[in-house]
Amino acid sequence: MPRIAIIGTGLIGASIGLRLQADEVIRDLSIVGSDRYHSHAKKAQKLGAIDQVERDPARAVRGASLVILCVPVLALRRVMREIAPALEEGAVVTDTGSTKAEVMRWAEEELPRGVHFIGGHPMAGKTDAGPEAADASLFEGARWVIVVPPSVPPSAINSVSAIVESMGAEPLFMDAAEHDAYVAAVSHLPMVAAISMFTLAFESEAWPELSRLAAAGFRDTVRLAATEPNVAHDIVVTNRHQLVHWIERYREALLDLKERIEDEDAEEDLFQYIAKASLEFTDFMEGAVGRKESDPEGGQPKFGISDLLMGSLLKRKVDEMGQRAEQRLEDQEREQRLRRNE
Amino acid sequence: MPRIAIIGTGLIGASIGLRLQADEVIRDLSIVGSDRYHSHAKKAQKLGAIDQVERDPARAVRGASLVILCVPVLALRRVMREIAPALEEGAVVTDTGSTKAEVMRWAEEELPRGVHFIGGHPMAGKTDAGPEAADASLFEGARWVIVVPPSVPPSAINSVSAIVESMGAEPLFMDAAEHDAYVAAVSHLPMVAAISMFTLAFESEAWPELSRLAAAGFRDTVRLAATEPNVAHDIVVTNRHQLVHWIERYREALLDLKERIEDEDAEEDLFQYIAKASLEFTDFMEGAVGRKESDPEGGQPKFGISDLLMGSLLKRKVDEMGQRAEQRLEDQEREQRLRRNE
Repeated sequence: MPRIAIIGTGLIGASIGLRLQADEVIRDLSIVGSDRYHSHAKKAQKLGAIDQVERDPARAVRGASLVILCVPVLALRRVMREIAPALEEGAVVTDTGSTKAEVMRWAEEELPRGVHFIGGHPMAGKTDAGPEAADASLFEGARWVIVVPPSVPPSAINSVSAIVESMGAEPLFMDAAEHDAYVAAVSHLPMVAAISMFTLAFESEAWPELSRLAAAGFRDTVRLAATEPNVAHDIVVTNRHQLVHWIERYREALLDLKERIEDEDAEEDLFQYIAKASLEFTDFMEGAVGRKESDPEGGQPKFGISDLLMGSLLKRKVDEMGQRAEQRLEDQEREQRLRRNE
Repeated sequence: MPRIAIIGTGLIGASIGLRLQADEVIRDLSIVGSDRYHSHAKKAQKLGAIDQVERDPARAVRGASLVILCVPVLALRRVMREIAPALEEGAVVTDTGSTKAEVMRWAEEELPRGVHFIGGHPMAGKTDAGPEAADASLFEGARWVIVVPPSVPPSAINSVSAIVESMGAEPLFMDAAEHDAYVAAVSHLPMVAAISMFTLAFESEAWPELSRLAAAGFRDTVRLAATEPNVAHDIVVTNRHQLVHWIERYREALLDLKERIEDEDAEEDLFQYIAKASLEFTDFMEGAVGRKESDPEGGQPKFGISDLLMGSLLKRKVDEMGQRAEQRLEDQEREQRLRRNE
């Protein structure tokens, strides 16, 4: 019976286990789980995410053809060291860590020759932690980055791709540096921005009043401040340089917008700036990827990148915005007439 | 039959209408609606949010004892001017605009003596616009700021409070300057930060890749970029100075966090900083308002401001964080032992 080991049975590990167990294609699978918090592994077993629990990760990987490491990034190196002596010749090892450059280096250093490491990063998750938050559909429709080092046999790549696809996710091949630069912008920057904005409000003298007024908009904007602190910390310190770069760019973008807001003579430009963001964000939320002008390959048609494929919401928004822009001009003219008549 | 006029029957106006119509205490009410987009008013009528449609807002307010203005902030002044001659002596007028200082000034200038204006701002909403997005429970549990100018009779205040309470919302009395300063922090800053972060990513050369990797965390953090452009623009230009102040503070907070991230010798401090944000945010999401130390009045007990009243999630998080902090220390010691033995 093929054996898969999941090391770390928190939200991610237990969700992977649940999905694998539910998969009707992969049959006769034995999933062994191990977690430094034994109670987490026990809970994952109770939920049906794993078949068997081992306290010692080295015992868990013995006889496994595939090992999935689902621990916080900074714990990965230690876990690799612990399981290294017990890994089978030819075993495939993958991970789910949020940064990839350092992880690939650790795998190179810690894992024995004859074992194939392929980096992984599911672009899905939630701020709730622990196996009790596990969800077999957590990765449904998500992209899952796969980082393949040189000289890994195709069979190993296929194993990891097959797992990713059985999660309902879409494999996306990238190199580690590329991955870390991109996630710094769309995953790690939003997280530290949320931490920063929440801390600013919370540390403010006006927090008693602010907390009474803060509604859904504030809560959503800063919700990533609830990221499990170990996970957040490990991301930040293993992707420090890319993240610092994007914080700097974000501070510049805020300065630019602040100057637009301060310029009382450029209200129409400011309106255009805001309207563009609103329109493009709606486009993005409707599934558009890439840029219309710069995507000559056409991307994946199912994402609706051409005007023809745009959803009805976007169409309506474009129409309404045109209608309102006209109305704004009419208003301005009317206001001027009124002033002249006063 | 008491007559209420709703001017502007988009998301907010139609939601108010729907809720009023569903209210079993307020009976025999006639609600007249008017919208510059006649089709919006027609739709609101079809949805049952209003009983009667008038093209001309002045005709709509004739005979109304209460007038609720639900138009974008910058349209308020024009609407006030249009309805002024038709308002009944003693009528109460209120609004739902997102900024209050300028609105209170316009009301003072545009509305006739003998009419009582009271500012209002429901701290709820969604980025969807138009009457089709209306929801009778939109304001349920939300706070609703009420700004009362000097010399308004208690009966007028009671009328507005009663409407707010019939929406399922909680009236919160504040002066206009206070309101504008607070919402700049928890409502307008999140909105412009979202616009700025989305624009940064979208304008980046890497957007084709970024848009493929952006997951729920990014989408939630920047979702306020979808705010209806007219609404967003009007907020920004009528609360310019407060907003600029908070953008500056936010840029400083980001600089502070960036420096913490850059300091490779202060990883433990960084962890504490992140953990504090996570813990306090969880506390806030569980309904805590104010600050534990600085809230001697005890606030409203139902919000669980003392440790005893903290929810189970927070309790669990505190326990787990303690457990993990211990584990981190153990890990560090172990790592040091391993290094010594190498």
